[in-house]
Amino acid sequence: MSSAVQPADRLLRGLPLYIQIAEGLLDRIETGDLAPGDRLAPERDLSDMLSVSRMTLRRALQLLENQGMISRVQGDGTYVSQPKIERHAGQLVPFTRGMQRRGYTPGAEIIAFEQRPAGASIAGRLGLLVSGSIYYIQRLRSIDRERVMLETFMMPAHRFPALEQYDLIQRSVYEILETEYGVLVDRAWQSLEPVVATKHEAEWLGIEQGAALMLEQRLSFDQEGQPIEYGKDLYRGDRFRFVTEMAPQES
Amino acid sequence: MSSAVQPADRLLRGLPLYIQIAEGLLDRIETGDLAPGDRLAPERDLSDMLSVSRMTLRRALQLLENQGMISRVQGDGTYVSQPKIERHAGQLVPFTRGMQRRGYTPGAEIIAFEQRPAGASIAGRLGLLVSGSIYYIQRLRSIDRERVMLETFMMPAHRFPALEQYDLIQRSVYEILETEYGVLVDRAWQSLEPVVATKHEAEWLGIEQGAALMLEQRLSFDQEGQPIEYGKDLYRGDRFRFVTEMAPQES
Repeated sequence: MSSAVQPADRLLRGLPLYIQIAEGLLDRIETGDLAPGDRLAPERDLSDMLSVSRMTLRRALQLLENQGMISRVQGDGTYVSQPKIERHAGQLVPFTRGMQRRGYTPGAEIIAFEQRPAGASIAGRLGLLVSGSIYYIQRLRSIDRERVMLETFMMPAHRFPALEQYDLIQRSVYEILETEYGVLVDRAWQSLEPVVATKHEAEWLGIEQGAALMLEQRLSFDQEGQPIEYGKDLYRGDRFRFVTEMAPQES
Repeated sequence: MSSAVQPADRLLRGLPLYIQIAEGLLDRIETGDLAPGDRLAPERDLSDMLSVSRMTLRRALQLLENQGMISRVQGDGTYVSQPKIERHAGQLVPFTRGMQRRGYTPGAEIIAFEQRPAGASIAGRLGLLVSGSIYYIQRLRSIDRERVMLETFMMPAHRFPALEQYDLIQRSVYEILETEYGVLVDRAWQSLEPVVATKHEAEWLGIEQGAALMLEQRLSFDQEGQPIEYGKDLYRGDRFRFVTEMAPQES
């Protein structure tokens, strides 16, 4: 750590070999030479083919695995992952509709549904008095029967009386709000943070404890600017990326 | 896993206790009752105060730690983390300027700078012939002397001859492009993915191996729509969140 500040005369430095190897493999994945589901050659053969040590190869594979590009199956081999599904960060497209548009069959399982007093921070976000009543709902979301997202959302109960009577397994929540309560989600504030899966989250999502997840927090507003939903969704990092267009800030 | 689909008559289910405990602690952090840098009471005292078992408390603390809200220091205690710094996902604000605006002193250390042939995927992104020459640059970025981001970017060498003569430690790259080459970054495509830190990334950033990082990939274009930079930045998940406004998609 202490030698990290580089004097200017040592500016031109080479790239570590394992990163070059990882980028070479990434090239083969991105150009389709290695396709999703393909099994990589065994480590021994691969290190021979690339003329690098096993240790260098392992570092390269670890880098790609940590980024969700390949996955190692214990006692079997290393496989090229499916391409990640894109969610548009700036667009308010519900999960159900977004996945259907991409040709997937979305599913939902309810793991928690309760009405309870809001804590201070939730009350603040939703514009309620502390101990105002909220719905607290958790659903496991799947596409083509594979679990990919753990969804948690809270809504002010007084705005949506008897929400529990509607089918939260088959129907989109935003669609229920619109059809049954006449409330349109108009815009939202969104925050994205990388987190690692706890034991329970990993079990729910069928992944390893410590795997990368994207935490999306979302505060949604109706057309009058009233907050109507606070969400905390956990997306599997090996299945999703969030994309957007960036423009220079108007100053 | 097999019992997860809930029949409708079992819809109303309670929230696990450890999540309630975690949310209670989160409340105290978000409302300022617990401030950044505060040490939590020892686990024994905390579990007594909250009337929960040590195991439930530990699960709650693990959840908050995985989300970067608290951090445990071996043999010392558990501390409330600094609030995460916000980066605007839809705005093209260079790191240097963004951090200065927030009152931090940004820094840079160069860990790789080389000119080399582009691989197939980089060549494709930057609109070069395969084996066209690129600069490959890695910098460790810090704020107030704390390392928080590992930046990797690639640029077509023919557009920016003799780039190595400029001061990449003190100056912003976008500022060099504008001042020295007359090239303005006009817009960019951005992708955000959660990943976990490899051993090397962890050493560089002074964090634990396996900690959560945000991988930001970015392809930047000049005013003529030519790609001029492909970047892969790794932000510490305990220090940054990415925020944006979401609007309904025009359909």
